[in-house]
Amino acid sequence: MNKHIIPIDLKKSYRLINHGPTVLVSSRHNGVDNVMAAAWACALDFDPPKLTVVIDSETKTREFVDKTGLFVIQVPTVAQINLTNQVGSHSLADDPDKLKKAGVKLFKIDGFDVPFVAGCTAWMACKVIPEPHNQNTYDLFIGEIIGAWADSRVVNENAHWSFDKADPSLRSIHHVAGGNYFATGEHHKGS
Amino acid sequence: MNKHIIPIDLKKSYRLINHGPTVLVSSRHNGVDNVMAAAWACALDFDPPKLTVVIDSETKTREFVDKTGLFVIQVPTVAQINLTNQVGSHSLADDPDKLKKAGVKLFKIDGFDVPFVAGCTAWMACKVIPEPHNQNTYDLFIGEIIGAWADSRVVNENAHWSFDKADPSLRSIHHVAGGNYFATGEHHKGS
Repeated sequence: MNKHIIPIDLKKSYRLINHGPTVLVSSRHNGVDNVMAAAWACALDFDPPKLTVVIDSETKTREFVDKTGLFVIQVPTVAQINLTNQVGSHSLADDPDKLKKAGVKLFKIDGFDVPFVAGCTAWMACKVIPEPHNQNTYDLFIGEIIGAWADSRVVNENAHWSFDKADPSLRSIHHVAGGNYFATGEHHKGS
Repeated sequence: MNKHIIPIDLKKSYRLINHGPTVLVSSRHNGVDNVMAAAWACALDFDPPKLTVVIDSETKTREFVDKTGLFVIQVPTVAQINLTNQVGSHSLADDPDKLKKAGVKLFKIDGFDVPFVAGCTAWMACKVIPEPHNQNTYDLFIGEIIGAWADSRVVNENAHWSFDKADPSLRSIHHVAGGNYFATGEHHKGS
């Protein structure tokens, strides 16, 4: 595990996606790992911390999550824009080498039987709160965050992001459409 | 209505919040207007276009939306960070002058009986799709987008954001916590 990774208090973990970055959703079933991109992920509650994510019924990720009830939401960086774009536009169903071709490297965290994507800057291990109506009608999943970690180069122990002193390639990203992304930009303090 | 405002094809309207900005939620009941801030809003579907938004049960907005089933999701700018912070931290229940004090100016769009916040750069009029279990258990609302508009200085007719040639004060914003915001940053194209 990357030496910069620190655990994040679950009650503050919503801050890892409060600014609306595009995320990667990873999952594992029967020893097979998969990763997809999702712009439609959002915090839902503070304590116990929950989030929502839309997982299309046509994806392999959906099949895995339906079977295991587990997934990881992680925050990719500017350096991973092509990786994000590729895992977001190819299915493991069509290409078993999808992850390798996209340059995805995975790592383990003890106690969690799900794959984590290296090079991201925040990770939330999630357990599905079963809501069959939402899942079947809207492809909408509610996950309880059961573990959270972040890269201390851009997130402090209070789960506050700070990009000013870090390499710009570590900034989070926000997908609009058609492979167009914005990096997370300048900090401003409201009064 | 601001001369820069253009209508947006409903099927492309998800692009207005796909990059995860913090939004303002406006509503009207019995002739009273209200506006609150929400970081927990997210696209849900393309066609018919839908979005999710978390509206806390303690808010006046919740009371209005529960009664009317209508609200507007709009995208505030860097110039509106203090406005966003103020409508997000004060309740109309405690201060009937909340909107005036925060500097909120409203405008009308024919055919929609909801208030729109001037100075934002994108607006989505929404009608609640009733899902009482989500609303009661998670404060989670699903809205169908029934009208969409944007400011042509930063959004083109295909609903693509472009900030490069616009004044930086028109960039959208992303709340983290405690009044800390990031502006939407540099554009990158994924391959």
